[in-house]
Amino acid sequence: MSERGEISVGNRPLGDYIVSAAILFNQGYRQVLIRGRGNNISKAVALYNALKERMGDALKLVDVRIGSNEVRGRIVSFIEILIERIY
Amino acid sequence: MSERGEISVGNRPLGDYIVSAAILFNQGYRQVLIRGRGNNISKAVALYNALKERMGDALKLVDVRIGSNEVRGRIVSFIEILIERIY
Repeated sequence: MSERGEISVGNRPLGDYIVSAAILFNQGYRQVLIRGRGNNISKAVALYNALKERMGDALKLVDVRIGSNEVRGRIVSFIEILIERIY
Repeated sequence: MSERGEISVGNRPLGDYIVSAAILFNQGYRQVLIRGRGNNISKAVALYNALKERMGDALKLVDVRIGSNEVRGRIVSFIEILIERIY
C-alpha cells in the first residue's frame, strides 16, 4: 500500500492517537501524516515523541511543516508531521 | 554578524516575543532560533506565523526540528524553528 494514512490530533487523550497510529501502520500504511492545529500542535509533537519512544529506529521522521490557514476569518497555526515506518 | 539569536517562548504574551524577534533582527542577527517546550510549542508556531505575516518574503523558514528531552525525570517535547531574515 503506497497511500498515506492521516491522523488529526484533537481533544481526545494522547493514548487514543497512539492507538490510531498503530492501527494505520498495521493496516499497511508506511507513512502517516500527523496534523495538529492551534493548541493541539503541542499534542501532535507529543504524539510523535510517544511513537518514537515506542518504535525507536523503526520510526523515521520524514518531514515537519508549519504554517497557518484562515479558518472562518481567523488565522490558525498548524503543524504537519510526516512519519514513516521502517521495516 | 554571523551568530544566531535565540528566543525561548514561555508564558508571556505572543506580542512580547514578536518584539524580541524584531530586536534581534535589528541588532543584526540574520538567523533566530525559536524554541518552545511542552504546551508552548503551539505558541512557538504562532510566533513564526505572526512574524511571517508581518515580514512576508523577507522571512525564510530554514528548518523545523521536533523531539523530546528529559527534564527532571520527565519527558518534555520541544520544537526548534530556525528563521532567517532575507535582505
